[in-house]
Amino acid sequence: MSDHGKWTVVDGGVSAARGFSSAGVEARLRYRDRPDLGIIRCSERAAVAGVFTKNRFASPTIQHDREQIERSGGYARAIVVNAGNANAATGAAGLEDARAMTDATAAGLGIPAEEALVSSTGVIGEPLPMDAVGAGIDAAVAALDGGGNGDFPRCIMTTDTARKEAAVELTINGEAVRVGGCCKGSGMIAPNMATMLAFVTTDAAIEPTLLQQMLRRAVARTFNRISVDGDESTNDTVFLMASGLSQPVETHTEAGRRFEEALEEVCRELAKKIARDGEGATRLIEVQVTGAKDEADAERAAAAVAESNLVKTAVYGEDANWGRIACALGYSGSEFAQENVAIGIGDVRLVEGGVRVEYSEEDATAQLKADPVHIAIDLGAGAGEATFWSCDLTEGYIEENASYRS
Amino acid sequence: MSDHGKWTVVDGGVSAARGFSSAGVEARLRYRDRPDLGIIRCSERAAVAGVFTKNRFASPTIQHDREQIERSGGYARAIVVNAGNANAATGAAGLEDARAMTDATAAGLGIPAEEALVSSTGVIGEPLPMDAVGAGIDAAVAALDGGGNGDFPRCIMTTDTARKEAAVELTINGEAVRVGGCCKGSGMIAPNMATMLAFVTTDAAIEPTLLQQMLRRAVARTFNRISVDGDESTNDTVFLMASGLSQPVETHTEAGRRFEEALEEVCRELAKKIARDGEGATRLIEVQVTGAKDEADAERAAAAVAESNLVKTAVYGEDANWGRIACALGYSGSEFAQENVAIGIGDVRLVEGGVRVEYSEEDATAQLKADPVHIAIDLGAGAGEATFWSCDLTEGYIEENASYRS
Repeated sequence: MSDHGKWTVVDGGVSAARGFSSAGVEARLRYRDRPDLGIIRCSERAAVAGVFTKNRFASPTIQHDREQIERSGGYARAIVVNAGNANAATGAAGLEDARAMTDATAAGLGIPAEEALVSSTGVIGEPLPMDAVGAGIDAAVAALDGGGNGDFPRCIMTTDTARKEAAVELTINGEAVRVGGCCKGSGMIAPNMATMLAFVTTDAAIEPTLLQQMLRRAVARTFNRISVDGDESTNDTVFLMASGLSQPVETHTEAGRRFEEALEEVCRELAKKIARDGEGATRLIEVQVTGAKDEADAERAAAAVAESNLVKTAVYGEDANWGRIACALGYSGSEFAQENVAIGIGDVRLVEGGVRVEYSEEDATAQLKADPVHIAIDLGAGAGEATFWSCDLTEGYIEENASYRS
Repeated sequence: MSDHGKWTVVDGGVSAARGFSSAGVEARLRYRDRPDLGIIRCSERAAVAGVFTKNRFASPTIQHDREQIERSGGYARAIVVNAGNANAATGAAGLEDARAMTDATAAGLGIPAEEALVSSTGVIGEPLPMDAVGAGIDAAVAALDGGGNGDFPRCIMTTDTARKEAAVELTINGEAVRVGGCCKGSGMIAPNMATMLAFVTTDAAIEPTLLQQMLRRAVARTFNRISVDGDESTNDTVFLMASGLSQPVETHTEAGRRFEEALEEVCRELAKKIARDGEGATRLIEVQVTGAKDEADAERAAAAVAESNLVKTAVYGEDANWGRIACALGYSGSEFAQENVAIGIGDVRLVEGGVRVEYSEEDATAQLKADPVHIAIDLGAGAGEATFWSCDLTEGYIEENASYRS
């Protein structure tokens, strides 16, 4: 994570900011010998913001969370999360189950019912085993009463191979302000939030409306700029909670600008960890587009290249097949003239003026062994810039997904 | 190919219709011991229609073909095609090479320069070996002068594993009218024409403007409804030539309607062969959506399901993971309410009213062993219908594309 003196990287992830604790426990919903249910708790009534999937088969948890936030006026004190079962395509019974999860969490923690939220991830279309869920919530509450534990980032994982955490500390008016979070996701990842859950917390004091604006802006440039397989899931959610235990942050101030930079950095770091942990992936791919007509056009072009199965397999095969990059740019919908396009991999320039330049195939191949692999594109059409992240496509993705459910 | 008494399936592919002959020869542009260059010749000045890729990195061949058709007023007597090199991202030199190919073909066949067209497929960004191309054109002309040979469908193949041909004969005003064609494509296949070339011929007499309308309509429901990996290529082209040696066909007539049905059937049969031959594929996937708001919405929903890497790997793994189908419908952009959706595989109904119904996992798995695998979706939102074809995603796709160029 780049520092630049703007902030300091700190430990603690989602529990790094003052007021927050978390715990993960083994509820045995689907997995054995690993935590699969957890709770994030805030000691205060925290302002909360949420960004949710646009999928029309959205899980009932999404509807329930929206309603909870509406009821509480934008505040929450806890989020309960389970892995192994997405509680999606489960109809009215699924909505009941989501409500039962927040009710049990609120009762256990002794907080108002509308101040608990819920996220689920896992298999679609199967009912939640509510007895095991209830026992898990009781165990997680007990763990929190004992001060919490370090298993929350672990309990939200499905096919993830690694915990994903990030946190920074910056100074506002002489006081330390922290932003931290954790997330999960490695398949069904696409712009507009694929099967990914992210939980970000801060001790800054920010009112709900501004918090929501800040989260939307950060997500647009981070979680919405990663892709593993282009599938946008039924459950994707990013929550941001602000405990208010440190400095107030307002908009249009120097402190506000610096806080947003730190928030975006934490979200970007988490998003990159999801892309890097794509199912079967061996390398992170970073596609940087400059010279686009505008930022939206740059994002379009970068996304098309990053999401192309042919580009992703070429990276895996360490084959500097830039024709596939050109092809993806061509169908991206971005506006440019091919004779103005430059393409490079790492520090090797492959294409200028839309055609191949002299380069050593050996040098280009060497750049493809790097992690991340950096693909740089200039469209020669304006000043728009965007970076998009994905991963290579390997036999491991096929193996994992041909047999995930069974 | 379904018959229904409307037409008879005949042999001959692109040479089935009166006036057409074809030949393929070994030009050794990239491959050894197999034909890689060929020519389709018409004895008459044939009306011609073309539908081309929208890719902004379109090959110079596309620009040249458009100009040739403009110059000739919509007529042609020959198409020269090579495999192994796409002549794409090759700039002004590539345009010169495309022109040189049609010039040499026209000179060899003794036809006006503007009545020859060209298509190329293969690796992007490398200059054509024009000496070998020239020698190949001479050999193909000689083969045509000797009556042609059966190697044209073979010479256009790249990673294709099979020749792809189809032809039918119908009767109009008591006379036999034929429509036939051949095509190539197995990777970089997406709606709006991925790396695929298709050549369709007929002996009906149809003027160029109407021929173009008919081709557009047929392509919209066939070649634009297949996907292997979602990549739309730089070179995709469908040509339709009409020699005029049999009955005239006009619009708004019974004969015109029947001719269009036959044309669509030939295009559909060719398109399905491309999807079935997807790189590494073991099965054709047929996604049929009914009950959509309109046909465009049905196509959107069917395409999202057919193109989902997660659905494609689940089919490969014979896992009736309908949650992935629901998820793809959800992000397709199609308008529906999840509680009205029904999903089935083969004749096993899995989902009704947006939730799982009772079914035997064994029965569902058995349907996934079929070829094609038939996925039936009803959105409960209207009367729109569309079918979209793709294939399963396997380790074979990765292996083929991680090492294609080297």
